[in-house]
Amino acid sequence: MSGGTDQTLRPFLWRASNLYPDREIVSRTHRGIERYTYSEYDDRTAMLANALEEYGIDEGDRVGTFCWNHHRHFETYFSVPSMGAQLHTINPLLPDEHIQYIVDNADDELIFVDQSLAPKLAGAAAEAPEFEGVDFVVMGEEGSEELEATPYETFLEGHSADYEWPDLDEDQPAGMCYTSGTTGNPKGVEYTQQMLWSHTMMTLTPQGIPMEDDDVIMPVVPMFHVNAWGFPFTATAAAAKHVYPGPSPDPEDLAGLIENEGVTITAGVPTVWLGLMEYAEDNELDLSALDTVVVGGSAAPRSMIEWFDDRGVELLHAWGMTEMSPLGTTAQLKYTLDDEDYETQLDHRAKQGMLIPSLEMRVIDESGEEVEWNGEDFGELWVRGPSVTQEYFKRPDANEEDFEDGWLKTGDVVTVDEEGYIKIVDRAKDVIKSGGEWISSVELENAIMAHEDVSEAAVVGVPHERWQERPVAFVVPTGGTDTGRLDEEIMDLLREDYPKWWLPDAIEYIDEIPKTATGKFSKKDIRKEYTDESLLEGSVPEEAAPDDD
Amino acid sequence: MSGGTDQTLRPFLWRASNLYPDREIVSRTHRGIERYTYSEYDDRTAMLANALEEYGIDEGDRVGTFCWNHHRHFETYFSVPSMGAQLHTINPLLPDEHIQYIVDNADDELIFVDQSLAPKLAGAAAEAPEFEGVDFVVMGEEGSEELEATPYETFLEGHSADYEWPDLDEDQPAGMCYTSGTTGNPKGVEYTQQMLWSHTMMTLTPQGIPMEDDDVIMPVVPMFHVNAWGFPFTATAAAAKHVYPGPSPDPEDLAGLIENEGVTITAGVPTVWLGLMEYAEDNELDLSALDTVVVGGSAAPRSMIEWFDDRGVELLHAWGMTEMSPLGTTAQLKYTLDDEDYETQLDHRAKQGMLIPSLEMRVIDESGEEVEWNGEDFGELWVRGPSVTQEYFKRPDANEEDFEDGWLKTGDVVTVDEEGYIKIVDRAKDVIKSGGEWISSVELENAIMAHEDVSEAAVVGVPHERWQERPVAFVVPTGGTDTGRLDEEIMDLLREDYPKWWLPDAIEYIDEIPKTATGKFSKKDIRKEYTDESLLEGSVPEEAAPDDD
Repeated sequence: MSGGTDQTLRPFLWRASNLYPDREIVSRTHRGIERYTYSEYDDRTAMLANALEEYGIDEGDRVGTFCWNHHRHFETYFSVPSMGAQLHTINPLLPDEHIQYIVDNADDELIFVDQSLAPKLAGAAAEAPEFEGVDFVVMGEEGSEELEATPYETFLEGHSADYEWPDLDEDQPAGMCYTSGTTGNPKGVEYTQQMLWSHTMMTLTPQGIPMEDDDVIMPVVPMFHVNAWGFPFTATAAAAKHVYPGPSPDPEDLAGLIENEGVTITAGVPTVWLGLMEYAEDNELDLSALDTVVVGGSAAPRSMIEWFDDRGVELLHAWGMTEMSPLGTTAQLKYTLDDEDYETQLDHRAKQGMLIPSLEMRVIDESGEEVEWNGEDFGELWVRGPSVTQEYFKRPDANEEDFEDGWLKTGDVVTVDEEGYIKIVDRAKDVIKSGGEWISSVELENAIMAHEDVSEAAVVGVPHERWQERPVAFVVPTGGTDTGRLDEEIMDLLREDYPKWWLPDAIEYIDEIPKTATGKFSKKDIRKEYTDESLLEGSVPEEAAPDDD
Repeated sequence: MSGGTDQTLRPFLWRASNLYPDREIVSRTHRGIERYTYSEYDDRTAMLANALEEYGIDEGDRVGTFCWNHHRHFETYFSVPSMGAQLHTINPLLPDEHIQYIVDNADDELIFVDQSLAPKLAGAAAEAPEFEGVDFVVMGEEGSEELEATPYETFLEGHSADYEWPDLDEDQPAGMCYTSGTTGNPKGVEYTQQMLWSHTMMTLTPQGIPMEDDDVIMPVVPMFHVNAWGFPFTATAAAAKHVYPGPSPDPEDLAGLIENEGVTITAGVPTVWLGLMEYAEDNELDLSALDTVVVGGSAAPRSMIEWFDDRGVELLHAWGMTEMSPLGTTAQLKYTLDDEDYETQLDHRAKQGMLIPSLEMRVIDESGEEVEWNGEDFGELWVRGPSVTQEYFKRPDANEEDFEDGWLKTGDVVTVDEEGYIKIVDRAKDVIKSGGEWISSVELENAIMAHEDVSEAAVVGVPHERWQERPVAFVVPTGGTDTGRLDEEIMDLLREDYPKWWLPDAIEYIDEIPKTATGKFSKKDIRKEYTDESLLEGSVPEEAAPDDD
């Protein structure tokens, strides 16, 4: 036996419930605001473990959840892993066939489901062989009309609040989450006790998202999505107050919780905060307690950072991936930028940020070389570290593609500036590879969409014999626009900011950009429907690659 | 392969030297103040690794240091562990026979030694078979008169600043430190890569000793003593500026470094800060940059906390052990105490504090039961966690005594108050076990020494047939004191604060309390020289134990 004891989650809760027995856990439910203490929470995790044991859950078994953010979901977060089982949080926004695939791939034995999500789960489970033998527990006091299920409170009732938590190995799988891949089936990521412990510690550092005992933490990012960025664990390690916003919170719900519970740190995707900003236009909004809004998922517009700055709230950009547990970077302001002007500071804060301690990265270009940190050169971001998985669950095909020597190939194409701030400029599968160099489809799209007569634009790489790929722009003009004039104006616009070899070889006007289920541009469909090499015939410019200049 | 990549120290330096290449490392040496950057530091750790490899150091070999706090010593901190070898920091204050035992037990192959410490090491090494085959490198540009040794800069010279750092297993031993046991030979503690990684992360949390990139960190606690409480690693993980105070810094040296380098966080034992406080009486001292003084080793007097408070500096009590890497507790003020009056806050801040996240503890009394957290009941503190060792190096005898089921029995007798703050009241071997209850020798000593006619006092337990042990006080009166009167006054003093069964059965007057090599009262010697059961004959009070009342 060398080294210290195993790294597991349970001691975080031990500390919180013993040193801070009266600190609150608050939850918005369909009954209104419910609240209890760490001490009661600790008791209920033990009752749940006893109930799961009686049901037949053993070490190594997988338990699913299909729930929003609330205290009962949080109870599964510590109870299931600490008894040695594995918590599999299922994303209810996925299409039925993905849910079926996931439940089958993970081999879930029991699924906890919200009352409001029971119809969706019932639909996915109906006549699906993947759900054979799976039982359901409905969160709350009542059963379900759609599913044969035990009410959660009945499931817990009569069980002891003492449980002999086992001493687990740190390699014990504790959690599981599937990536919502845009192509093919979702890929499962297993989180060991050690990975979740590491992620908690790394997040808790001043370089991550530090939390203290007087903080009030509200994760708006869903608990079905990479453990709500690990906030339920980090907040417990800090013995902070937890606030869970419940099913489908609207801006008014969030505003009420922030004001009434004194939320100091919250986290969510940009659209959540856009909603809050709109709400604030017509309503009084007291943000005096709020310190930090963590934004991830996609980039926050600069104006959003400024809006919160004006109100004394720090908008902290963060970036991560399911494969990373998930936190990878935060865009904290470096001490070297303290004396820079506000615009220069914003330039950095609007990026994805710097790696948190103990992660490492490489940024690899087309030729397999590491790119220079100059804020301009592109490469694919590779990362590794104690919180980064080194494989997908039962997916050797995907492993070969996405991992190399312990490194995760993130699939994100980035620049790194002189200060070490990462900026995502494209996805690796969308970046346009022209003459050995990369062109960012995202940058071209944003530039084109800045034209007032353009409603949507997507730029994709079209195969090209000489240059490998060349960019073609698909543009949806606003009604009645003269596309002949628009052609010229778009090209002029692009010439201002980009080298000639970046300019699209062709602009195609279409009625609508195809979208994915979650509303994003589906470049896969564009490529399938619209592009073939004939688009480019006779149109290759002389300056198609920089090496050729 | 399950989970993330191994937890090792090297990525901390990777991040600091890549994201903060120009951040400084400053060192006071016999040549004055020397300074360079993380980037140069990183280069020199690679040069050192190449030099060590050429010398013949392999993965798993042990490399000793016999040095004060300076940049070259810090170079060994990352270089040796990151090449897979093990850094063994030797305490030069130990007696020669302990140094010989340690070098033999650890099997050191090469020892880095300070110029100023070479005479001491040469003395220990002279004609000692334990030192056979051990080579020496003297820190600095020059050789040594006392030892046949290579100068450090010569050792490094000509080596490449590139080194292919291996991907290490997290169980790889990385460090080693010996406890300076008061009885028997020192006991070795091995630190794996994982333990040091865990300790770094746990220390870096807001609940530990958080550090940021704008911090300037000066460990005064020696780097030969439990890695200077891990500060060189934590400061690097935070990419803070390092300041090393060099050999035997006096208060003026420390004051100069604090003022000129803008030190924000420093750490040391109380006597260091007493020295600084005395210096400040006669000299201007600018503490405006200083945020936190971390105090451990022994308890800081309340007046010291107040003195720093008056100057806008937080004195943060911390407690730890060599076996714990070492940090165990910090006496940060809980949010629940924010609104209490200053005296109540001080009551808590003057204790050793609360466990940092992911450590667990038990406090076990004489009967093997956990004591109540009421601030009064005593028990021995047991701890466990990822940074706490579970064994001594090659010492099965000591392992059996000090470890149980992964728990370290700290040997400290403590109370825990309702808020969870730990206070050390005695050492387990010194606490007096009377009638199934424990009496704190330390509390009685402090109470007796509060009498103006007492210069020193030690209280030890003397074996007793009925009560197991009974306290006897050994008192050194100030010159010319009437000991007959003193007897009465001491007993009156104790009666005010303690139950009758705590009162010593006898007071013996002696000329001097025997001391250990480091100047502490040697109760072992008191027991050996002075006590036998006859001291207590006919003196047993009726109230010798509370159960008997």
